[in-house]
Amino acid sequence: MTAYRAPLRDIAFVLNEVLEVSTLDIPGYDALDPETTAAIHAEAAKLAETVLAPLNATGDVEGCRLENGVVRTPQGFAQAYGLLAEGGWIALDCDTAHGGTGMPYLLNCTTGEMFVAANMALNMYQGLTHGAISALQSHADAALQARFLPDMVAGRWTGTMNLTEPHCGTDLGLIRTRAEPEADGSYRITGRKIWISGGEHDLSENIIHLVLARLPDAPEGTRGLSLFVVPKLLEGGARNGVACIGLERKMGIHGAATCEMEYAGAKGWLVGAPHAGLKAMFTMMNEARLGVGLQGYAVASRAHQAAVAFARERRQGRAVTGAAEPEAAADPIIVHPDVRRELMDQRAFVGGARAFAFWGATLIDRAHRAGDAEAEALISLLTPVIKAFLTDRGFAACVSAQQVAGGAGYIKGAAFEQFTRDVRIAMVYEGTNGIQALDLVGRKLGRDGGAAVRGFLAEVQGVIEASPPELEDCAGALRAATGDLQGALEFLMERGVADAEAALCGADDILRLMGHVCLGLMWLRMAQAAARGSEPFHKAKLVTARHYLLRTLPATTLHLARLRTGGTTVMALEAEAF
Amino acid sequence: MTAYRAPLRDIAFVLNEVLEVSTLDIPGYDALDPETTAAIHAEAAKLAETVLAPLNATGDVEGCRLENGVVRTPQGFAQAYGLLAEGGWIALDCDTAHGGTGMPYLLNCTTGEMFVAANMALNMYQGLTHGAISALQSHADAALQARFLPDMVAGRWTGTMNLTEPHCGTDLGLIRTRAEPEADGSYRITGRKIWISGGEHDLSENIIHLVLARLPDAPEGTRGLSLFVVPKLLEGGARNGVACIGLERKMGIHGAATCEMEYAGAKGWLVGAPHAGLKAMFTMMNEARLGVGLQGYAVASRAHQAAVAFARERRQGRAVTGAAEPEAAADPIIVHPDVRRELMDQRAFVGGARAFAFWGATLIDRAHRAGDAEAEALISLLTPVIKAFLTDRGFAACVSAQQVAGGAGYIKGAAFEQFTRDVRIAMVYEGTNGIQALDLVGRKLGRDGGAAVRGFLAEVQGVIEASPPELEDCAGALRAATGDLQGALEFLMERGVADAEAALCGADDILRLMGHVCLGLMWLRMAQAAARGSEPFHKAKLVTARHYLLRTLPATTLHLARLRTGGTTVMALEAEAF
Repeated sequence: MTAYRAPLRDIAFVLNEVLEVSTLDIPGYDALDPETTAAIHAEAAKLAETVLAPLNATGDVEGCRLENGVVRTPQGFAQAYGLLAEGGWIALDCDTAHGGTGMPYLLNCTTGEMFVAANMALNMYQGLTHGAISALQSHADAALQARFLPDMVAGRWTGTMNLTEPHCGTDLGLIRTRAEPEADGSYRITGRKIWISGGEHDLSENIIHLVLARLPDAPEGTRGLSLFVVPKLLEGGARNGVACIGLERKMGIHGAATCEMEYAGAKGWLVGAPHAGLKAMFTMMNEARLGVGLQGYAVASRAHQAAVAFARERRQGRAVTGAAEPEAAADPIIVHPDVRRELMDQRAFVGGARAFAFWGATLIDRAHRAGDAEAEALISLLTPVIKAFLTDRGFAACVSAQQVAGGAGYIKGAAFEQFTRDVRIAMVYEGTNGIQALDLVGRKLGRDGGAAVRGFLAEVQGVIEASPPELEDCAGALRAATGDLQGALEFLMERGVADAEAALCGADDILRLMGHVCLGLMWLRMAQAAARGSEPFHKAKLVTARHYLLRTLPATTLHLARLRTGGTTVMALEAEAF
Repeated sequence: MTAYRAPLRDIAFVLNEVLEVSTLDIPGYDALDPETTAAIHAEAAKLAETVLAPLNATGDVEGCRLENGVVRTPQGFAQAYGLLAEGGWIALDCDTAHGGTGMPYLLNCTTGEMFVAANMALNMYQGLTHGAISALQSHADAALQARFLPDMVAGRWTGTMNLTEPHCGTDLGLIRTRAEPEADGSYRITGRKIWISGGEHDLSENIIHLVLARLPDAPEGTRGLSLFVVPKLLEGGARNGVACIGLERKMGIHGAATCEMEYAGAKGWLVGAPHAGLKAMFTMMNEARLGVGLQGYAVASRAHQAAVAFARERRQGRAVTGAAEPEAAADPIIVHPDVRRELMDQRAFVGGARAFAFWGATLIDRAHRAGDAEAEALISLLTPVIKAFLTDRGFAACVSAQQVAGGAGYIKGAAFEQFTRDVRIAMVYEGTNGIQALDLVGRKLGRDGGAAVRGFLAEVQGVIEASPPELEDCAGALRAATGDLQGALEFLMERGVADAEAALCGADDILRLMGHVCLGLMWLRMAQAAARGSEPFHKAKLVTARHYLLRTLPATTLHLARLRTGGTTVMALEAEAF
């Protein structure tokens, strides 16, 4: 198996030459000069390449074991997690008040890409802890923050999110877990939660669970959910009434413990206002979903590296233009056009997705650090696209990398098939990709009379207009794709108001159409930046930009055509006729 | 997990109402009246549903074990294989001279769909045996046939195909296995073969290996390969010099033993002429590749069934048009447009693919049984499309079925994820899908001055013209898609002659474009047949036809647009720049 090499040059290109982050008017971004970020990224890369990546296959083979209520993670995971905590990587963007480094969220993403690519399963413990920290930072009172955050930020304690129950995942209004108030101001939590990542394990001294439950007087549905913090161990080290009663056996991410949790009158404390639990969870939604989109392209990035290495080494057949290496028995398969097509498609996706995710992270920073409402509206619009499009295409890129490797792509131990199995979950959790499309069409596009999407279109228009004449082919491709997006929005406005069902039949097409326009936008920006450079690296970026813009982007026309069929064939069959 | 239900009504519809097989002028087809085929299919369905399908999960969990050179298949596999043999299912279309039933190859496909859907891994032993029987029937002399075929046809002995070696899969010209002539007319075979499905197991009394190897005076490359038959046990029961020295650990099809084989001077006999081994293998290529395409949609068919069952049972949220079942806490998710879109896409693929595969089987029968050269040319043209398009889209349909099931789709034991892992191999073996595209563009399209593709276009034209006015929307969609195909062929003729590399950069797009036209053709034929019917079943077929023709088929425009970019971006990057 090829060793993972963190794509430091590509990450630096997006930060310094495309987004020019140190020039952005966002508090804290002035510290993001190329030297500083390069130093941070070099450290993260070292940890990812030498510690996390070698454990990826181990984690898959060993998986997690549940023994008498204790979960054993794969060999090496605990030590590696300790190094992540020690290096301050869990707390990179956490409040300095609680021991965090206070860096922009953006760096959580740039370093997160490397950690995920190196070992997605291990990174999940880190990601869930980060989410729990964010929730407590935003919604817990000072006393709860003081009690839990320092140890979590330091990495001694980890965190979890408890939403799903056996009978409900997407539809959280059906949650049944109860919270009974106690005289001392605490609550007794009782119920069963499933799909709890990191619900139990041996990586940390304590596990802090955030749990959605219902107070006795709660109204029905999602407006009756409250958020509670429930530690595994109480002060003094006594065991709380929460236990892992089962581990899911999954297609992939075997190193991540996916737990069934039993809350049997566990002691917990209310986070935020009563009945405002879902809203509290949703304030972290953009970050959480961007994090999942990042998983999609990060794993694909590593799969692509492995596919390139394989295509250079494996020799079969001859180049159609004549033997490339006549002295050898056969040419390396990278000479074959169809292999090259797979590699270029992967490369164009990964490069575009990285820029898209990092741009999204700057919008989150702008919203949170500068209190910019427009940035908040824009990232809320783009979040479902980042989550669904990057995981959907990331999975496809991993399947494509497998395909380059032929039979070796199907064999255990060569890693290709593990990437496919691992990344598959990203299309499902944190809201299935279908739910993302529903969120985009049902909530985000129409919000504030479509202000956010108009802002997005203006942004695209600005980038197209700023394009130099030598990139007219690229700008023209994005112009055409944007025309398709406008056509889709017009169709929605005309039809969607009268027929919500027809609009939702096209939700997936709109999301994909928009995803392509977003990656097209990023590639045009990258092409503009690359045109200013003179290295072979820049030339390669230009080629890849044209590959995406000229070859992949025309997919928008197909999605518009599909959208325009309305729901006629999608909903025409009675449910009983299936 | 949902029990498998063989889609008998759908299979009968294609045979009796669409292809009208009993009226076709092909020797043996007069026996294929609806009653006879229904009786045969009912028997096959019973075996598939009650014996094979329940073993599918067992096979995945247990896998195969190699112990002291003996391979143990999963519990129940040996008994199930015995029932397949006993029922005559292995020999359905084999020559009656050797104990076969002599039925058309078509029935091997219609029953094969059910056997594959029920248990793809177990079916592979049957499929490989069938392939070995076909090779011996076509190329071995009478003595070898008499010696091996009766026991193989009876199912007491199984067969294998030995092509791949560690350093070569696609590029068989690199094969190194040697064959040394002995005084008694036999040969000593020495070499190592990998990826040998069913190379060793406990399902049969003997295993008959077909092996590609080089004679001492063989020319280099593929023209120096000869075919040998090498039994595991020699006459009298003595062990031959061939052994399984390893089992591959794979992403899926765990119940199928994928063996590394060591030939250490094993005794074998030449099949056919010296140096004509690859040609001998290739005479069965169309059947073998159609069989793999069939795997693609058969597994998808079962995954679709499971997704429908899940979508009917799982309750989350409410229909956008108002609660469908107000008395329940939530509606079944089949009410949601995006779930319905996934189900309709799966359904439209599976139905179209089934008709395409069965039509292909009638062409093979017409070629073999009626000696029809035009049918032979047409099926040779369509074979790479059947293999690659049906496995590629079949995999996508399994991924889509997983998506309907949300978290349950990612869990072991719920079967969804097994379908995805199992069917993934079909995109790789029997020539990767990239090789299929190369075969289509490099060999098949241009053969005999393009006669076959002209014949295909005439066939499509005829079906369009025979369409009644009420199906004009359907016919129009196929007309437009066919226009795209003609545009692609013109582009190839103009550019491909001068620039083979550019042509091959578009090979994948042409194959997909053609795949869509083929499924569009089948759906227009099915729509015409359904329009003549009056059952709810026929109404549902019409809806599904429109779903494919109006919503999916416009993909041809995208593939044409991509093709027209030529190889400019695909090959623009130096191999070193990746």
